[in-house]
Amino acid sequence: MVDTATSMPTSGAAAPVGHGAPDEPIERVDTGPIDISGAVFDSEALGRQLLGTWAEIRSGARKLAANPDLHRIEGLSMAEHRERVLGQLHLLVADGQVNLSFPKELGGQDNHGGNIAAFEELVSADPSLQIKAGVQWGLFAAAILHLGTERAHKAFLPGAMSLEVPGAFAMTETGHGSDVASIGTTATYDEATDEFVIHTPFRGAWKDYLGNAALHGTAAVVFAQLITRGVNHGVHAFYVPIRTAEGFLPGVGGEDDGLKGGLNGIDNGRLHFDNVRVPRINLLNRYGDVSENGTYSSSIESPGRRFFTMLGTLVQGRVSLDGAATAASAIGLQIALTYGSERRQFTAGSDTDEEVLLDYQRHQRRLIPHLATTFAQTFAHDEFLVKFDAVFSGKADTDDDRQDLETLAAALKPLSTWHALDTLQEAREACGGSGFLAENRLVGLRADLDIYATFEGDNNVLLQLVAKRLLTDYSRKFVGAEPGVLARYVVEHVAERAYNGSGLRSLAQTIGDFGRVARSVGQLRETQVQRELLTDRVETMIAEIAGRLRDARHLSKADAAAVFNSQQNELIEVARAHGELLQWEAFTRAIAAADPNNVTVLTWLRDLFGLGLIEKHLAWYLMAGRLSPRRAQAVTAYIDRLIARLRPHALDLVKAYGYTDAHVRAPIATGAERARQDEARAYYAAARASGTAPLDEKQILADRKAAEKAARKAASPKKK
Amino acid sequence: MVDTATSMPTSGAAAPVGHGAPDEPIERVDTGPIDISGAVFDSEALGRQLLGTWAEIRSGARKLAANPDLHRIEGLSMAEHRERVLGQLHLLVADGQVNLSFPKELGGQDNHGGNIAAFEELVSADPSLQIKAGVQWGLFAAAILHLGTERAHKAFLPGAMSLEVPGAFAMTETGHGSDVASIGTTATYDEATDEFVIHTPFRGAWKDYLGNAALHGTAAVVFAQLITRGVNHGVHAFYVPIRTAEGFLPGVGGEDDGLKGGLNGIDNGRLHFDNVRVPRINLLNRYGDVSENGTYSSSIESPGRRFFTMLGTLVQGRVSLDGAATAASAIGLQIALTYGSERRQFTAGSDTDEEVLLDYQRHQRRLIPHLATTFAQTFAHDEFLVKFDAVFSGKADTDDDRQDLETLAAALKPLSTWHALDTLQEAREACGGSGFLAENRLVGLRADLDIYATFEGDNNVLLQLVAKRLLTDYSRKFVGAEPGVLARYVVEHVAERAYNGSGLRSLAQTIGDFGRVARSVGQLRETQVQRELLTDRVETMIAEIAGRLRDARHLSKADAAAVFNSQQNELIEVARAHGELLQWEAFTRAIAAADPNNVTVLTWLRDLFGLGLIEKHLAWYLMAGRLSPRRAQAVTAYIDRLIARLRPHALDLVKAYGYTDAHVRAPIATGAERARQDEARAYYAAARASGTAPLDEKQILADRKAAEKAARKAASPKKK
Repeated sequence: MVDTATSMPTSGAAAPVGHGAPDEPIERVDTGPIDISGAVFDSEALGRQLLGTWAEIRSGARKLAANPDLHRIEGLSMAEHRERVLGQLHLLVADGQVNLSFPKELGGQDNHGGNIAAFEELVSADPSLQIKAGVQWGLFAAAILHLGTERAHKAFLPGAMSLEVPGAFAMTETGHGSDVASIGTTATYDEATDEFVIHTPFRGAWKDYLGNAALHGTAAVVFAQLITRGVNHGVHAFYVPIRTAEGFLPGVGGEDDGLKGGLNGIDNGRLHFDNVRVPRINLLNRYGDVSENGTYSSSIESPGRRFFTMLGTLVQGRVSLDGAATAASAIGLQIALTYGSERRQFTAGSDTDEEVLLDYQRHQRRLIPHLATTFAQTFAHDEFLVKFDAVFSGKADTDDDRQDLETLAAALKPLSTWHALDTLQEAREACGGSGFLAENRLVGLRADLDIYATFEGDNNVLLQLVAKRLLTDYSRKFVGAEPGVLARYVVEHVAERAYNGSGLRSLAQTIGDFGRVARSVGQLRETQVQRELLTDRVETMIAEIAGRLRDARHLSKADAAAVFNSQQNELIEVARAHGELLQWEAFTRAIAAADPNNVTVLTWLRDLFGLGLIEKHLAWYLMAGRLSPRRAQAVTAYIDRLIARLRPHALDLVKAYGYTDAHVRAPIATGAERARQDEARAYYAAARASGTAPLDEKQILADRKAAEKAARKAASPKKK
Repeated sequence: MVDTATSMPTSGAAAPVGHGAPDEPIERVDTGPIDISGAVFDSEALGRQLLGTWAEIRSGARKLAANPDLHRIEGLSMAEHRERVLGQLHLLVADGQVNLSFPKELGGQDNHGGNIAAFEELVSADPSLQIKAGVQWGLFAAAILHLGTERAHKAFLPGAMSLEVPGAFAMTETGHGSDVASIGTTATYDEATDEFVIHTPFRGAWKDYLGNAALHGTAAVVFAQLITRGVNHGVHAFYVPIRTAEGFLPGVGGEDDGLKGGLNGIDNGRLHFDNVRVPRINLLNRYGDVSENGTYSSSIESPGRRFFTMLGTLVQGRVSLDGAATAASAIGLQIALTYGSERRQFTAGSDTDEEVLLDYQRHQRRLIPHLATTFAQTFAHDEFLVKFDAVFSGKADTDDDRQDLETLAAALKPLSTWHALDTLQEAREACGGSGFLAENRLVGLRADLDIYATFEGDNNVLLQLVAKRLLTDYSRKFVGAEPGVLARYVVEHVAERAYNGSGLRSLAQTIGDFGRVARSVGQLRETQVQRELLTDRVETMIAEIAGRLRDARHLSKADAAAVFNSQQNELIEVARAHGELLQWEAFTRAIAAADPNNVTVLTWLRDLFGLGLIEKHLAWYLMAGRLSPRRAQAVTAYIDRLIARLRPHALDLVKAYGYTDAHVRAPIATGAERARQDEARAYYAAARASGTAPLDEKQILADRKAAEKAARKAASPKKK
């Protein structure tokens, strides 16, 4: 049982010992006691750090999310759940938090980072509430704000902000999700009436999966191909009223998406338009406009750049999913680690006491690395949020800044949303049948978060965007260089595996394979060594792919596409490696900024995260000659060691996030299991003490055999 | 688009070419056409083989499962769903299939394998229906059959078989799942009244998660510690009436488990007993009995063996989950592969046509290896079912047979249930937003199958059982040998990595690292090489672990437990490797038994499965010196190649399972997506043909730039 008190710093606690003594023996089988000296940590200080840059706003949002009126009630019908969530949105309006990001002159606070931080915390109340709020303020209202100009702000924002006009964000079509540029809906300018005609040409161009579309939305921001004077200027957004209390407006139609795998508090649905007319000024015209006479104009000449700029203003969805997925992971781990610290099963080292689940090595292996990744994501997310705030507040808003932000979003959102699904599933399984009960929340959170992996950009598509950016950056290094330079670079760095990096060469080769595993471990826990290993993999993979792609530019379009396609899987893997490196770097910076009392335990967690990445890709490091076989074995040995060290702190570490029973709300993690175990153990202890408990047949047989053996021995004393 | 016709064998088709030409060049980047000669296959013959040993019964069960009255209706409330499933159970009784396994004299057919085959197919109708039927006939009635003797068969089986008595299987307790031996419920014999007193001593000993317990069950088979004359003889089963139409019988209480993550058509609940009395003859007394005067007797002296024998009779749950999980995986893949073959997104190699999803390398990588694993599971499952039938029919029913069957169940059920979750999740994501809609079934199947990973034995606990068996078998090899023999074996085979196996040594070392990748591939696709690589890993890991454990027997109980615990993660991994090897062997035997027309494509699939396992554990093969780095690279290169080869056949291969639209029932996989795509493409083709389509701004700009460039060129003709 973890004693929380022991992990709090005593006054005058010794300074942290960093990585611990460097020559500590690490062997595969270590039956001795785990040295946890120096592993005190200050959970209050850690909690403050985990709250991040907008700590106060985040704490406020947690307070709001603790309100039972905002909580999900399990077992509601879809209709009841939708109604409840709509009501909850009005409570959010009353609270005011949801309008943090809007301009001061419209009643907002121009606080972009804080707005997202607050929004993310709603996930603990009900992901449906969170995402429906995201549809209303993060997509519908945000599109009016970012894609519209003053005329739209004045006309449409107040209703959107106050929820007087619930709105849909009509971008996705049944036939086009991540490829927004290819949507089929058209908005054709009619000079005669000064109107745009919004039209759905075929079934695949129906808008689909739109929150607020099935029931509650009375308007929508509709994305469509803007056509004027016979020219298609690409995708633009239009404000389109769709429904009154009496139902759809003329020309508008739709369907309910019906039951989904999760998020059933949101009324997702489809919309289609049969030559629906809206005034010209309903075009959200910040990046492209049409004059009365039908002339198109834009501040951005390139249609491609214009498109990406417009979409870029909507990056906050991805930002917030990264944070929400991380919060949900922490809550899931708090449930599983609490249960794992209380639930007992099987006797192993004792005749009477069953073992606590978390004392089993496998159980630790299943949960504690997920905790390390969750920490990494938390720190990476805070930096991401700071970057987002800088761009959206205008503090650092160059084209490069926006592109960096996009790439960051495309790298981090896939990793954290997948991690949440993995974590919640592992947590569910680690709680067995209890984990499958809706009341214990793991299944519901997982079901709701499932779609996070494919909405706001399919994770695989996003990672491919990251990879393309990495390739572009890579090839820029060689702009102007003769073809031979690039080829030589590839050969030297990659093809022949003759790696000339500083630390890595020695790691793989100079120190022989015959040293003790402990020496290898000593190196692997160096920050610089982990950084080089992780960085090297990204750079080498990109260089390799670039090498394979370098002749594709001379091929026909179809052949070039085939070559690129032959690298697609690898491209997505390098993007993942890049994202993981970003998380690792953020974790490392967080250690530098941490309370001195927390450096040791955070370093263990960071090492577990970093070495976990290396272990996952160990075959690559071996094939690339970056780690010798002996050294590679040390990776797993040290991970085992780190997990054993972290085990006594795991529950306290996750509790440092600060989620209370009002956020966790799983009976198995808020007292029920502890009470059951206490009662059961007291029952058996009393039975043993009473001396009236039934004897065990097994024990009787064992005693009899022992007695017979003793009797035989006594009968034939000659035999030794 | 896959043309089904092309993959059917033409009459007089050439004999299959096996692995294809041996010296075919395999390079990382292969932009040439994929050679698919010899890849005809006979899907009818393949379908027959996939149906397995009880093909007719399985087909009959499919016909039954196609009945809309048995289908899940999405969106029912929990209460409605439970009621519907209860009604469906009565339809099953009318059909008769559910009683196949019972004795002929009681109206059954003594057909154990066929019964399971039929039962598995119910998963396509509704997993709730399947599992509730499993509770009634596979657990409740089966326990009466296998643990009871004639008196119980006569008294209790007819009602259980006819569903006149819906029954719960009251084994699991809130505080004890996989550790059944430690349950807290007691059954104390009272000589005075000739009754057993069933009692729940504390909250953790409540029976929990029991289907039929919350609402419908009127009796239960209750597992409890049998106590007579002051001695606890361990867990035995008792037939206990629990409820009438008026509610619980006196002394019986319970609770509804409420909403779960899935299977909400089943009324899972809790039961507790306050000194509930049942006649002595309600003890299911096949393996242990109590006489009127309270004397305990059993045909099995060892309490441990007795317990495992009793539990072993209930292995059919694990058997059937292995099959049902595999069937659900096939259906999920049919949905995703159909959608992936029809849905288009992004243009790549063409100006007008978007690519079909399954033409993207990543999409192939996400789905096709899952198909290979599903095939492996199907073949392994059929062998498993044959073994099960042999044991339960008495054809081969020694202690060893039963133990082998248990081990097989413990190895295969975890792999296939996890695989189903992975597959259904990947399929869901591969279908994007459409995959998240309940109507497309992937989310519902996944939610229902989630619990398969932890019920009927937690997957991790089961794999640990397998590992213990492997360790026992390993140590038997050295019974009687001097201690040095074992130590020397470990040193020679493992510790020094000086592997002396026949084929592997040459694979790793003799053939140098400087050959072409193609030569490595040539070796990797040899059946014998794959077998040795897979076998070697299992044997080496076990030998290593045994080496680390060998001194533990001299330690105290607590210290020995700690040493064992330090190997737990590795033990579970070796059990997984063992299970994977069993699947691979079954696949290989299935190729030998296949229609000659199908050998080529099945061999590709088997190679993909086998090399996929090797790729997953590539770091191990590298660290253990079994594969050189260059050779290891060939693994991934050949996998890429195999996937490209299989891509044109993937949809036909999954369709060979024979699931019809009535089983699949996902609109996106039964015509809706194809219709949408056809309509959209026709619309654009007509627009292009009409010449009235709007011009594209991008194209106008590109044309203008080209014209300007041409003009500049014309103006300064000197420049080359």
